[in-house]
Amino acid sequence: MVDGVPEWILPRRYLPATPPSRGGLPGVPVSLLTVGRFVDFPVSRGAKHSYDRTNAPPRKGPVVAKAKRLVVLVSGSGTNLQALLDAIATHGAEAYGAEIVAVGADRDGIEGLARAERAGIPTFVRRVKDYDSRDAWDEALAEAVSAHEPDLVISAGFMKIVGKEFLARFGGRFVNTHPALLPSFPGTHGVRDALAYGAKVAGCTVHFVDDGVDTGPIIAQGVVEVRDEDDESALHERIKEVERRLLVDVVGRLARNGYRIEGRKVVIQ
Amino acid sequence: MVDGVPEWILPRRYLPATPPSRGGLPGVPVSLLTVGRFVDFPVSRGAKHSYDRTNAPPRKGPVVAKAKRLVVLVSGSGTNLQALLDAIATHGAEAYGAEIVAVGADRDGIEGLARAERAGIPTFVRRVKDYDSRDAWDEALAEAVSAHEPDLVISAGFMKIVGKEFLARFGGRFVNTHPALLPSFPGTHGVRDALAYGAKVAGCTVHFVDDGVDTGPIIAQGVVEVRDEDDESALHERIKEVERRLLVDVVGRLARNGYRIEGRKVVIQ
Repeated sequence: MVDGVPEWILPRRYLPATPPSRGGLPGVPVSLLTVGRFVDFPVSRGAKHSYDRTNAPPRKGPVVAKAKRLVVLVSGSGTNLQALLDAIATHGAEAYGAEIVAVGADRDGIEGLARAERAGIPTFVRRVKDYDSRDAWDEALAEAVSAHEPDLVISAGFMKIVGKEFLARFGGRFVNTHPALLPSFPGTHGVRDALAYGAKVAGCTVHFVDDGVDTGPIIAQGVVEVRDEDDESALHERIKEVERRLLVDVVGRLARNGYRIEGRKVVIQ
Repeated sequence: MVDGVPEWILPRRYLPATPPSRGGLPGVPVSLLTVGRFVDFPVSRGAKHSYDRTNAPPRKGPVVAKAKRLVVLVSGSGTNLQALLDAIATHGAEAYGAEIVAVGADRDGIEGLARAERAGIPTFVRRVKDYDSRDAWDEALAEAVSAHEPDLVISAGFMKIVGKEFLARFGGRFVNTHPALLPSFPGTHGVRDALAYGAKVAGCTVHFVDDGVDTGPIIAQGVVEVRDEDDESALHERIKEVERRLLVDVVGRLARNGYRIEGRKVVIQ
């Protein structure tokens, strides 16, 4: 019992020390790993979540046992980016299933970009104020991301809402995290709203971005207990810890195993 | 990893073999248990959740180490009722903290009533169709419950929404369960709605009833994973299992320890 919350509703263990690998066993040489088929676009989607794939970049090379290409978008300190960098450094890009090929931002001078630079990863910045319209910015961002031919785009604390052009190119493979158990508490104050409601469990949701606010198909959710003495900051810190681990886990599984989106249901293969 | 859901988001252990007892240790004679102060009405509530306590039955006898009085309301098979009966039979009413003094229903001939009768517990039935109005039924139900002088009233699969008179008498001590992680998926199809949304975690919420639909202050929540192959029935069965255990745990803790409701936040003392 922790602060009135029975232990059995809570996770006590987090990620395994080595990343899960459906296609291989720990100790088996990386080159022998069989990586599942990667589906870069959904095989079927409901009308509400259909995307135009005509602008998708052409697939290149073999789809087996090759690290998928990630572009990571940041707006701040980049702790989720760092978690991905650490996982890839620890396990190697092929074993993890993905590598970060570029980091993009909507502003200069942030620690997220500095982390990328220290890791020798190309960066780019597209600031809204440098464009005549939000749509022009959105198109420029989509173009910059597209230049790196990503398999998946990860919003790692990226604070801008993307537009039509971006979703047309990257819908169904643009991953975001939200610090609440969606559909509860969408929007910018998920943690504060959960506390104000008196929820006893909180958590985070990793989901594909669609044209709503935190409404896209859910890939995975992690649960965090709410403690009697929690304030927004304390609860958010514990959620962020789970969020980092969940994001690393989910991106790796998406990349290694492939996935499909059936209506609103995301199935990792 | 179970069906794409990391194990760490899932509870694997449920209730301890003996009920948690803040006021005592296993093996200590029941008569020596110090049971926390029981607060039968909230010490403070926001305007949205204020209740009239003028109709509350007078308190009787000592408030220490005495089993609290439960009236349980049912509409069907009464599996949650049975879970409470089993816990009380296993641990004894004083150690558990509560006893069931009556079981009420909105219909005849249901297994929930039969369970009560087999356990030698008084029953009563108040059918809506026997009254001129919904308000008259509500008043009759409140009167019938009140006659048993309950400390807590438990909706254990009771399928009727109670009215003003009932809430005026039992608001802040009328406990309900809902098969979803509220505020997500309120209403009659919580499990179906969670599946349709593509949620990766589901669960149940034990809450106090207010005048909204599944909007009352949350006491506790239990988490259940959603599996790729789940249909409504399979998921609901797993939720019900957690719901029974959570309800037994929560009712015992409310009874043994007392609680307060501060605005929307429920704190078990």
